[in-house]
Amino acid sequence: MQTLSENAAFGGVQGVYTHSSKACACDMTFGLFLPEEAQDGPVPLLWYLSGLTCTHENAMTKAGAQGWAAEQGIALVFPDTSPRGEGVADDAAYDLGQGAGFYVNATQDPWAPHFRMWDYIADELPALLEENFALDMERQAITGHSMGGHGALTLAMALPGRFRSVSAFAPIANPTGSDWGRKQLSAYLGDDETAWAAHDASLVMRDKGFDGPVLIDQGASDQFLELLKPEALADAIAARRQEATFRMQKGYDHSYFFVSSFMEDHVTFHANALWR
Amino acid sequence: MQTLSENAAFGGVQGVYTHSSKACACDMTFGLFLPEEAQDGPVPLLWYLSGLTCTHENAMTKAGAQGWAAEQGIALVFPDTSPRGEGVADDAAYDLGQGAGFYVNATQDPWAPHFRMWDYIADELPALLEENFALDMERQAITGHSMGGHGALTLAMALPGRFRSVSAFAPIANPTGSDWGRKQLSAYLGDDETAWAAHDASLVMRDKGFDGPVLIDQGASDQFLELLKPEALADAIAARRQEATFRMQKGYDHSYFFVSSFMEDHVTFHANALWR
Repeated sequence: MQTLSENAAFGGVQGVYTHSSKACACDMTFGLFLPEEAQDGPVPLLWYLSGLTCTHENAMTKAGAQGWAAEQGIALVFPDTSPRGEGVADDAAYDLGQGAGFYVNATQDPWAPHFRMWDYIADELPALLEENFALDMERQAITGHSMGGHGALTLAMALPGRFRSVSAFAPIANPTGSDWGRKQLSAYLGDDETAWAAHDASLVMRDKGFDGPVLIDQGASDQFLELLKPEALADAIAARRQEATFRMQKGYDHSYFFVSSFMEDHVTFHANALWR
Repeated sequence: MQTLSENAAFGGVQGVYTHSSKACACDMTFGLFLPEEAQDGPVPLLWYLSGLTCTHENAMTKAGAQGWAAEQGIALVFPDTSPRGEGVADDAAYDLGQGAGFYVNATQDPWAPHFRMWDYIADELPALLEENFALDMERQAITGHSMGGHGALTLAMALPGRFRSVSAFAPIANPTGSDWGRKQLSAYLGDDETAWAAHDASLVMRDKGFDGPVLIDQGASDQFLELLKPEALADAIAARRQEATFRMQKGYDHSYFFVSSFMEDHVTFHANALWR
């Protein structure tokens, strides 16, 4: 693991690190914010999964999360959204290939050799973080934006006991029924739709739910509402009787101005679960 | 004036607008955050002047100021740092020409026709803002980062009664004695150094001071300390007996992680003066 940069921030350190990933078979870069308390011992960890076109950097510089995490004494990790590099398959579209990993393990060519973001986020990166930083891996929570909200919800429900709480900003909520999903799931996982179901938060919510609190924020003026399909997730939450808060926020769109506006609420929500 | 974008943020609106500038003889773009309270009537205004290489966008997306401004019920304006466009002179260096206006009125060729950022910030943009938005121009304050801290300090001291408070993050504090200053002031203003003095915060502080509170934050691990020369400003403040708080912040560098870490303090400082 190599340190690319470390900047003092809110009494702690915002670092950027790169490492050779076995899951993705390429170098992967991530951001990690450690609050001041990490100097004295392990601290809880909140994952932030980013959306389409993002790298590790977008949320790290634009979401305004570090100040709230510092106040709560918790760490933040900002993974990249896909494998990257010259030898890694890509597509001209912004929503497939590099920058659009969709948090799945691809089984189809040309994606299968590198696009294993599920394993990267579920297994490899947690092990690397635990080994190298003062993190209490018994206290984890997860959030994300758009494609990252999809990843946060599907990972949290698939790994019971791993995350104490899950939240999402404008998640891709029903990818098996959306052009943000059908295209990518068929490219990465093939045409057999039974393989897709584990990667649709609304279907998994209806089927299994999450053993802990859930917080969803969705902008009512989001320009991508037709692709995100929040109604499918709201319906599944209600049908499941899932412990959850689902907020439709008047006037907000899909941008980081929306994300940062509600970041305090999300970090506080997770801190309440992490310090319980 | 044209609206380029408006995003809901923290209960208010983050807008980006462009207009034909007479002072700079080109189109100029700026960001303006209006808190929710602006729907009911004029609100106070805090100016944020950016540093070298920045546009109107950097602080708007990375400084985390809107949340604090919303809490205090004040507006924020994020001007660009220079004239721009194909017909506007430029230099290959990052610290001269476009993105590096230094908040002066250039008198020398090839800069004189467009590089009139002093007039733009002191006269033209305030008039435009007053005409178009619900702003209480009797309640203004100003801050900035690096080159923008230089601009904030020199403008505040030159325009008594205009700004109730002034602050700066890692300002270029003594440009007449620095490579961040001598090069630009000679290019824009010519070799007669008597014309430079009005644009050196340390010299103006020693000579006139500011009729109100001053707050300066400087990272102790700033990679540009030798160019910023905070000691000249600290010395001038002490010699002048200026009402001021000067903080050397251990471990912090020159980045927006530094700026955002102390943004709450700066917005609160200005709000206290603006609502007095």
